[in-house]
Amino acid sequence: MQTKVFLNEDEMPRQWYNIAADLPSPLQPPLGPDGNPITPDMLAPVFPMNIIEQEVSTERWIDIPQEILAILHKWRPTPLHRAYALEKALGTPAKIYYKNESVSPPGSHKPNTAVAQAWYNKQFGIKRITTETGAGQWGSALAFACSLLGLECKVYMVRISFDQKPFRKIMMQTWGANCIASPSTETNAGRNILEKYPDTPGSLGIAISEAIEAAVTDKSGQTRYALGSVLNHVMLHQTIIGQETKKQLAKIGEKKVDIVIGCAGGGSNFAGLSFPFLSDKINGANIEVIAVEPTSCPTMTKGPFVYDHGDTAKMTPLLPMHSLGHDFIPPPIHAGGLRYHGMAPLVSQTIVEGLVTPRAIGQIECYEAAVLFARTEGIIPAPETSHAIAATIQEAKKASEEGKEKVIVFGLSGHGLMDLSGYDSFFQGKLVHYELPESEMGSAIHELDNLPKPKMVKSGKW
Amino acid sequence: MQTKVFLNEDEMPRQWYNIAADLPSPLQPPLGPDGNPITPDMLAPVFPMNIIEQEVSTERWIDIPQEILAILHKWRPTPLHRAYALEKALGTPAKIYYKNESVSPPGSHKPNTAVAQAWYNKQFGIKRITTETGAGQWGSALAFACSLLGLECKVYMVRISFDQKPFRKIMMQTWGANCIASPSTETNAGRNILEKYPDTPGSLGIAISEAIEAAVTDKSGQTRYALGSVLNHVMLHQTIIGQETKKQLAKIGEKKVDIVIGCAGGGSNFAGLSFPFLSDKINGANIEVIAVEPTSCPTMTKGPFVYDHGDTAKMTPLLPMHSLGHDFIPPPIHAGGLRYHGMAPLVSQTIVEGLVTPRAIGQIECYEAAVLFARTEGIIPAPETSHAIAATIQEAKKASEEGKEKVIVFGLSGHGLMDLSGYDSFFQGKLVHYELPESEMGSAIHELDNLPKPKMVKSGKW
Repeated sequence: MQTKVFLNEDEMPRQWYNIAADLPSPLQPPLGPDGNPITPDMLAPVFPMNIIEQEVSTERWIDIPQEILAILHKWRPTPLHRAYALEKALGTPAKIYYKNESVSPPGSHKPNTAVAQAWYNKQFGIKRITTETGAGQWGSALAFACSLLGLECKVYMVRISFDQKPFRKIMMQTWGANCIASPSTETNAGRNILEKYPDTPGSLGIAISEAIEAAVTDKSGQTRYALGSVLNHVMLHQTIIGQETKKQLAKIGEKKVDIVIGCAGGGSNFAGLSFPFLSDKINGANIEVIAVEPTSCPTMTKGPFVYDHGDTAKMTPLLPMHSLGHDFIPPPIHAGGLRYHGMAPLVSQTIVEGLVTPRAIGQIECYEAAVLFARTEGIIPAPETSHAIAATIQEAKKASEEGKEKVIVFGLSGHGLMDLSGYDSFFQGKLVHYELPESEMGSAIHELDNLPKPKMVKSGKW
Repeated sequence: MQTKVFLNEDEMPRQWYNIAADLPSPLQPPLGPDGNPITPDMLAPVFPMNIIEQEVSTERWIDIPQEILAILHKWRPTPLHRAYALEKALGTPAKIYYKNESVSPPGSHKPNTAVAQAWYNKQFGIKRITTETGAGQWGSALAFACSLLGLECKVYMVRISFDQKPFRKIMMQTWGANCIASPSTETNAGRNILEKYPDTPGSLGIAISEAIEAAVTDKSGQTRYALGSVLNHVMLHQTIIGQETKKQLAKIGEKKVDIVIGCAGGGSNFAGLSFPFLSDKINGANIEVIAVEPTSCPTMTKGPFVYDHGDTAKMTPLLPMHSLGHDFIPPPIHAGGLRYHGMAPLVSQTIVEGLVTPRAIGQIECYEAAVLFARTEGIIPAPETSHAIAATIQEAKKASEEGKEKVIVFGLSGHGLMDLSGYDSFFQGKLVHYELPESEMGSAIHELDNLPKPKMVKSGKW
């Protein structure tokens, strides 16, 4: 009974898949403060030009440089597992597979793009990368990548996480990164906030503002900023996940996938697994693709498709995306990586096109699913990942009811060893279920009339 | 540039290697309180008979049951990596390989025997396993294994670790185990200690006493005890590590290994990697094999080879081993897994035979090595593992001085994500170097004359 499918090094994907080439309607451009489309040159102080080129590319396949492949090969190809024990526990006729991204040294899918971004920055002559991190998974991954490539890395970590999760900071430090609490006194953005609110717990919006300011104000010109999700090039770098999964399924003769499931915060984990399957769907394959989010931050299921800012301080361009409003502050659920007001434009568009079905699940159901998974399959999942597991269990039960042997694939985006306090709350019965009332949504919804409208509509082509 | 060697499922070893069959001098038996050898029947209340049979076996090869292989396959074969980046940082002509056991779901080599022990207990009709844990790596691994096999698991965790490392406890709980602080009020051993010393931080010796008592006093007869190191069957189950390593080296045409290095606390990680190589050495191969321990607990380098108890309370039989005395309490270094007064009889004998060279290294040098490794190879090692890395770096530097292209293989026994506080101390300059003065050794040395003498001497056969 084979529980795991490996690929050899020579079976690793050599190209990233760019879904922008295949979308029924063209992706709308980001807009500047004047309402006009952003040009590549306007992004040059923030990102190196080779990454900006990827950001705007509509080429279907983009070669992965050999040096990036060599680093990814430290832990890739990642295994695809058949969840026999979970299936048995559920008594489902469904066949459940999961792609295990938790085996990377930082423990999640994030290094797939961190390594690529660090490498492109280095190629462009950049010596130092700044970024923000909330829960710490992205900051850890970028620290890891910069360490291997010999770049300096500065991480602005949201103050409350910095204080509550000291181990994430030590992880980054071990990889040589400089991780400081945000707001800090090192930037104007940070100082302004601290002056007004000396005791602020910080926010991802503030941390983004600080990281961007630190990059663009470095007079040496050798510093750039990096983002761990949302943008097109980040989605691109993650498509290695879904491509490997398809090869692994083919290797064991699994010809037809019925359902693909991933959790989605900014969208990169979901995009990485699902976009290569969406390529088949656009070409006629009958696949259900489900993006799962928390009920406490229902960006895809309740947020409108609008032009909104990526950060609270409105430093970023306006992006066409599902959004709960750039000033929305989600309740403190344990899945920190899913607490983001927006959704990647590429993922948002696949939803508007009808290619992807979003679903919101509450955190108690997610932890129940996570514990069942840990006790059957043996891996303790990250709180974010538990959302994909909960949706998988819902679908497996549905398959039982329908008596159908469906093939379900979900993304195990990371392990939960750095986030065990949520499990503790769950066992102690202290976990809270959050359901967002419409009245608590942020400014995106109320300011809707003041923002430009994305022109894209569902084309109905496929 | 291939940085990693995988094996396929069909290349997994199908048998464990029992070095007892090949040792130049026969292994001496454990002795009871009367000084006479222990018989298998005397161990029956503690261990199931199928494990006792393995404990006393001198068969060279023992088949691994298919059901155990199926579970091990969830993360095995583990990768063998070539440490190109570390080699480059050291400027050494040596070729450094490391066997990566950190990819198991609990993050170390421990599940290799935890799964086997849980399976044999289940086969024997046992429903519940008790054990002790210090730092928590073994308790986590047994909780994981019992979860997958549907057994109850009770872990007595040394009080001070229980309080200082709450995340280990949550890990075990997530896998369904019941982890309680030791001394507890649930056993006579625990109650007696608490009566005398209500504020005791506990010790591994006390926890062992409690776990054994809980097993042997269960009137249902369905509870047994499990140990994560020291005993012969534990060494046996770990030999899958070294066997895989040899296959991986052969696969890439690496014909000659010069040096094999592992850290040793109770001895199972070291035995697992090295015993299959020692088999070659006994048959004439020229291989240097190095077992690394902390200077604060120099069992192999300073402890005599004696008959001593495995626990402080003298509940276990007398074992022929290197020991610092059963009442020796090592200084509080961060490598909790290396804080044990004794050493596995099989490993002790390979030292007395001259097959293995022990080496002690202080923890500051180990953390320096660990940080260099993390920043070059990308994996944050466990504090225990850092001892093997420090010795590897010593050997790589020696190879530089000698101008020799030596092939070095070391065991990466686990990752350090659950033990980051040691790194924090290191970065803050708070780490202490311990060198054990002879005067602080325990009773084994002073009681030497009162204990039986092992008959085995270096045979000089090989």
